[in-house]
Amino acid sequence: MVTDLAAATADLTLGPAKAGYHPLDPVSACEISASTAAIRSHLLKLAPNARLWFKSIQLVEPPKKLLAPWLDQWNAAGGKSAGLERLPRNAECMVGTKEKEGVKWYEVIVSLDGTASVASCIRAPDNLHVSPDMAEMVAAEEALLAHPEFQAAIAKLQLPPNAKVVADGWIYGADSVERNRRCTPFMVYLNFSDNPDSCHYSAPLPLVPVVDSDDFSLVRIDYTPIFGTGNKTVLDLDGPFPWEQYVANDYDPAILASQGMQFRDDIKPYRVVQPEGASFSVEGRVLRWQKWSFHIGFNYREGPVLSDVRYDGRKVFYRLSVSDMTVPYGDPRAPYHRKMAFDLGDIGAGVCANELELGCDCLGEIMYLDFDHLNVQGENSKLKSVVCVHEEDDGIGWKHTNYRTNRPAVVRSRILVIQTIITVANYEYIFAWKFDQSAGVHLETRATGILSTAAIMPGETSPYGNVVSPGVLGTNHQHIFCVRIDPSIDGHDNTIVQEDSVPMPWSKTDSDGDNQYGVGYVVEKTPITKAGSADAAPHLNRCFKITNPNKINSISGRPMGYKLVPAPSQLIISHPESVGYARAEFGEHHIHVTSYKDGELFAGGRYTNQSFGNAEGMRSWIAREDNTDNTDVVLWHSFGLTHNPRVEDFPVMPCETHMISLKPADFFDRCPSLDVPASTQKFNQSKLFNGGATGNSQTESCCSR
Amino acid sequence: MVTDLAAATADLTLGPAKAGYHPLDPVSACEISASTAAIRSHLLKLAPNARLWFKSIQLVEPPKKLLAPWLDQWNAAGGKSAGLERLPRNAECMVGTKEKEGVKWYEVIVSLDGTASVASCIRAPDNLHVSPDMAEMVAAEEALLAHPEFQAAIAKLQLPPNAKVVADGWIYGADSVERNRRCTPFMVYLNFSDNPDSCHYSAPLPLVPVVDSDDFSLVRIDYTPIFGTGNKTVLDLDGPFPWEQYVANDYDPAILASQGMQFRDDIKPYRVVQPEGASFSVEGRVLRWQKWSFHIGFNYREGPVLSDVRYDGRKVFYRLSVSDMTVPYGDPRAPYHRKMAFDLGDIGAGVCANELELGCDCLGEIMYLDFDHLNVQGENSKLKSVVCVHEEDDGIGWKHTNYRTNRPAVVRSRILVIQTIITVANYEYIFAWKFDQSAGVHLETRATGILSTAAIMPGETSPYGNVVSPGVLGTNHQHIFCVRIDPSIDGHDNTIVQEDSVPMPWSKTDSDGDNQYGVGYVVEKTPITKAGSADAAPHLNRCFKITNPNKINSISGRPMGYKLVPAPSQLIISHPESVGYARAEFGEHHIHVTSYKDGELFAGGRYTNQSFGNAEGMRSWIAREDNTDNTDVVLWHSFGLTHNPRVEDFPVMPCETHMISLKPADFFDRCPSLDVPASTQKFNQSKLFNGGATGNSQTESCCSR
Repeated sequence: MVTDLAAATADLTLGPAKAGYHPLDPVSACEISASTAAIRSHLLKLAPNARLWFKSIQLVEPPKKLLAPWLDQWNAAGGKSAGLERLPRNAECMVGTKEKEGVKWYEVIVSLDGTASVASCIRAPDNLHVSPDMAEMVAAEEALLAHPEFQAAIAKLQLPPNAKVVADGWIYGADSVERNRRCTPFMVYLNFSDNPDSCHYSAPLPLVPVVDSDDFSLVRIDYTPIFGTGNKTVLDLDGPFPWEQYVANDYDPAILASQGMQFRDDIKPYRVVQPEGASFSVEGRVLRWQKWSFHIGFNYREGPVLSDVRYDGRKVFYRLSVSDMTVPYGDPRAPYHRKMAFDLGDIGAGVCANELELGCDCLGEIMYLDFDHLNVQGENSKLKSVVCVHEEDDGIGWKHTNYRTNRPAVVRSRILVIQTIITVANYEYIFAWKFDQSAGVHLETRATGILSTAAIMPGETSPYGNVVSPGVLGTNHQHIFCVRIDPSIDGHDNTIVQEDSVPMPWSKTDSDGDNQYGVGYVVEKTPITKAGSADAAPHLNRCFKITNPNKINSISGRPMGYKLVPAPSQLIISHPESVGYARAEFGEHHIHVTSYKDGELFAGGRYTNQSFGNAEGMRSWIAREDNTDNTDVVLWHSFGLTHNPRVEDFPVMPCETHMISLKPADFFDRCPSLDVPASTQKFNQSKLFNGGATGNSQTESCCSR
Repeated sequence: MVTDLAAATADLTLGPAKAGYHPLDPVSACEISASTAAIRSHLLKLAPNARLWFKSIQLVEPPKKLLAPWLDQWNAAGGKSAGLERLPRNAECMVGTKEKEGVKWYEVIVSLDGTASVASCIRAPDNLHVSPDMAEMVAAEEALLAHPEFQAAIAKLQLPPNAKVVADGWIYGADSVERNRRCTPFMVYLNFSDNPDSCHYSAPLPLVPVVDSDDFSLVRIDYTPIFGTGNKTVLDLDGPFPWEQYVANDYDPAILASQGMQFRDDIKPYRVVQPEGASFSVEGRVLRWQKWSFHIGFNYREGPVLSDVRYDGRKVFYRLSVSDMTVPYGDPRAPYHRKMAFDLGDIGAGVCANELELGCDCLGEIMYLDFDHLNVQGENSKLKSVVCVHEEDDGIGWKHTNYRTNRPAVVRSRILVIQTIITVANYEYIFAWKFDQSAGVHLETRATGILSTAAIMPGETSPYGNVVSPGVLGTNHQHIFCVRIDPSIDGHDNTIVQEDSVPMPWSKTDSDGDNQYGVGYVVEKTPITKAGSADAAPHLNRCFKITNPNKINSISGRPMGYKLVPAPSQLIISHPESVGYARAEFGEHHIHVTSYKDGELFAGGRYTNQSFGNAEGMRSWIAREDNTDNTDVVLWHSFGLTHNPRVEDFPVMPCETHMISLKPADFFDRCPSLDVPASTQKFNQSKLFNGGATGNSQTESCCSR
């Protein structure tokens, strides 16, 4: 038995072995083993015959009142933890006891101080549902495919003899506020080929069987509407289901090659070469790049979490993370009205993260990060290469040419990218935190992968989507992300200020004001002094500044701050009285401001699976109407895209890319990238195109006219 | 004398000498010489004693009714012009005759067929003003600095003995609809240093002298307000102007180095290596890359112009260009209320384009394009390396991982970039047209360079801007771009359709509709059938589809199209009755749709200098109320940024980047980048970070689990 987890763990952390203790380091393999052993022993006392089902484990981050001063001390000590006190360390595990009578789910807190011991173990709330997990999904699919009732339903469709039925576990959204069984619906498809990588999404079948998530029994088979409008299903057809309309529509390069695809042969290699290596350094899980430093944590639900983000030693953000995402579909007909996934809350961006591969998912010199997790048996399971860190060139950082001397001054913009790619059944999301040399932080989201498709009869079109392959409806839907920004702009007491650019009234006389010609405008500032919401308003150039009212910029005389220009994307379209709307607690406004409370991390609520809203997410935090003026506040930004599919989005969707930015606004006393060395050919070593005469002559020296 | 311009020009075109005739190739050096000779001889007959002042020359593009069929023939002939007819070729030159009595400006059309001859020569309209040019600006500054009245005004400020006064010519916006003299205002600054690259914008002086643009005489000296509000000027001060408050605030790396700046030494080289060269080819000025082909033209006003843009041989856009840009300032006090530049119409993106330098302005293998122009004497003058063409890696193009087989399929996104950087006195703009492998076209704009600054008294702040250096007000302002998109979506007859995503009414009963649960939404389509305007509406996910109603997508059953999601940026803030508002003919709506007319290229009107609006730009075209349904239409998009300066934007501004995208929407029958080869390590040759142990092992083969 391990008696000193800290010592045992130290050797397993990333980077130099002597990186030292950091209270935000994710739970280690060693800690996981010790935790599951302690939990097993604890739960088997309560339920001796139970089979345990481990869903997740993650670090419970120390309370801010302990962690914030610790981080200050650690930074003051040059990032060394020697001599600093150890903060209480706890992990949180979701585990079920499966017995004949059913399953009971427990939230278990394990203390990791010295040895692992169960500190608390409480039943998950009865009116909420724990998330599904991949093992459940796979087991449920297996049970479904073997079920005689399902097989009979499939038989009625009169599919071709060699066709293989594939069922993707999905998310069972609530359609009323009543308590439901915890269920997994399945989207069912045909695979005409023996190849499991053939794109079954191009042959959807018109039924949605629903399986009990705990015991995998078949609850019911729903049939889906198969005309453009109305609720007629395949049961209403006279003849068999017209599967003959389907065509192979594959994305897999090997399959496409076997079908005779002529791949482009005119794209020449493009390599990122970093002869002296990457410009960042890592110690433990603390990254340092240019003037930035931050800790990269990770958990099964949020994926990467960036903490203690500092620039040139100054505090900027206490914690940055993607809090949740919801994907409501716009086809209102049963059973499609239930299609509303919370990809982070329901599944988890961490456990769904791809194992990234060198040369495929990023260019240049790449650092991959592994994290430890567990499987349903409670055994250690590594999430390998789920985060990559690399640099990118981002074009010109700033430039000015003096027209008198014709002398240009130009610096390039180098950025640091922290990237994760998640696969949630059919869809992919790419999240990239980007840090720049002008002290900006950006979150880029890319949506790609495969549309969730529905069967539609030959020749039909639908107002609820677009036919993207014969007989295949790509349903209209939304993706609404919610990003959690816990700021510490030169300190923890901050105020969020809404700024609008508004026209001045036209002055009629000299004494009436300055606007004699009608061209004047001013910036209207509205501090958000009480927990609440606000919306983007690009027509007013609206931005939200996170200010520190206690720190005044010596140049401008205004509070130091960082600004967020919110993405003004469409908010949730569902009717305000619908269950879908209620569930999307963060979906009705672009901006939420709350006072900081330990553990308030998940905007859609802790339990989003089959949730019916108004439970324990954003709305309840806002409802407290806490003071948010010059205190520890959290800024939440909801944004995304309404995706009405194009034919071009199938069988695989070119990335749809969006970005939000956090930029300093009177945080510094001048341009923060002034000290970036000028861009030179000696450094960059570009080449002249040699495929044609350009008629000009370039010299090796530049920027020095 | 040149008797066959076509033959003489052929040898001077870009690329292989035998590239052949293309009617859109810009006027050649040879054509310019011949044109100015013909014009000189013509005008000196009218005004024998005049000094000629050549402002600009550019190709008059052939009428679409001739050019469109020619381009079809040329494309059908594999891009060879042998045997195709030559279209009438004309250049348009703006030239003035300077005499004692004053200057007269002429719009001269020169026929270039065989020999150069003046086809028409008409006086520029009397109620409009020709643009300034750099030679005028420089000559006017020289005259100003020597003027005793100006010297006396400067003397009153009691500046330090060694200080050098610098005056930047600017644009003299109208403040009433009355006819004004053509004038150049000067923004005056102090340079404490002998170095002309010292940033004089950090020491603005409180006066704006106005010089006659034609004869360079001093018209008047305006004094600027020097408090945060109100119109008090330096004339109202008891003592001398407090120039002592200014501090050196430089951006030039050499100057910063001499001041002891510690430049970052931790940014390691990052090189783009293309061992087999770039993937594009060029013949004449026709570029081919991946499935794209287009012609790159260029003129002094618009800069680069992309024509005959085709994908896989299919017509997509007839012509793409930046039409104009306006930059109104928000300080309403005289004389600042006049600060409203039209950077393209007033000056020209072509003549202001930077000579780009290898390794400074772009990475990788770069093609630079030169274009021919003239100086005020009518002599040939080359615009060297004003356009660069190169490829960039744009991250992941699409990805999907089959969760059953754990097999990823991933392609990277390579893009082709056509970049121009312009310097307009203090400011820089970077325009980049980007083409991708999924048949998307994007226009990225970056605003950088130096704020236009104003003097403000010590300790003062202002509602009209931000103090960005002691005594320096960075004034609030807007940048509104207008992009001209002349579509040819699979043909020239197109219709623009506005699409909004709107909630369905909640169905109360089964027979009442499909929306029983309140979560349904549909896409509302509104074709724009008459010339008019529309606005962005991101809260409705509004997009505009350029459709070809005559070509139906065989998969979706919907018209083939391309979609534009308009940037929902703030429109012009000035009061609708102000002159500034009237001048910004394209500034009050995001979207304009007009019927195509030859020569209607400039949304702000042909003459924007000191314009007072409602003359011959967008508003008059819209007012025709032409049919725009299933006909030859033009789509115009106005967007930009309201820029309320941060301290961080000085003394040089980190790029503020925006992008608009044109993406196929049911133009293809599946994802157009399916045939991009999979991303592999063999091709990309990335490297593992070696600055720390990552605890994982990567193999050389990838994407092949």
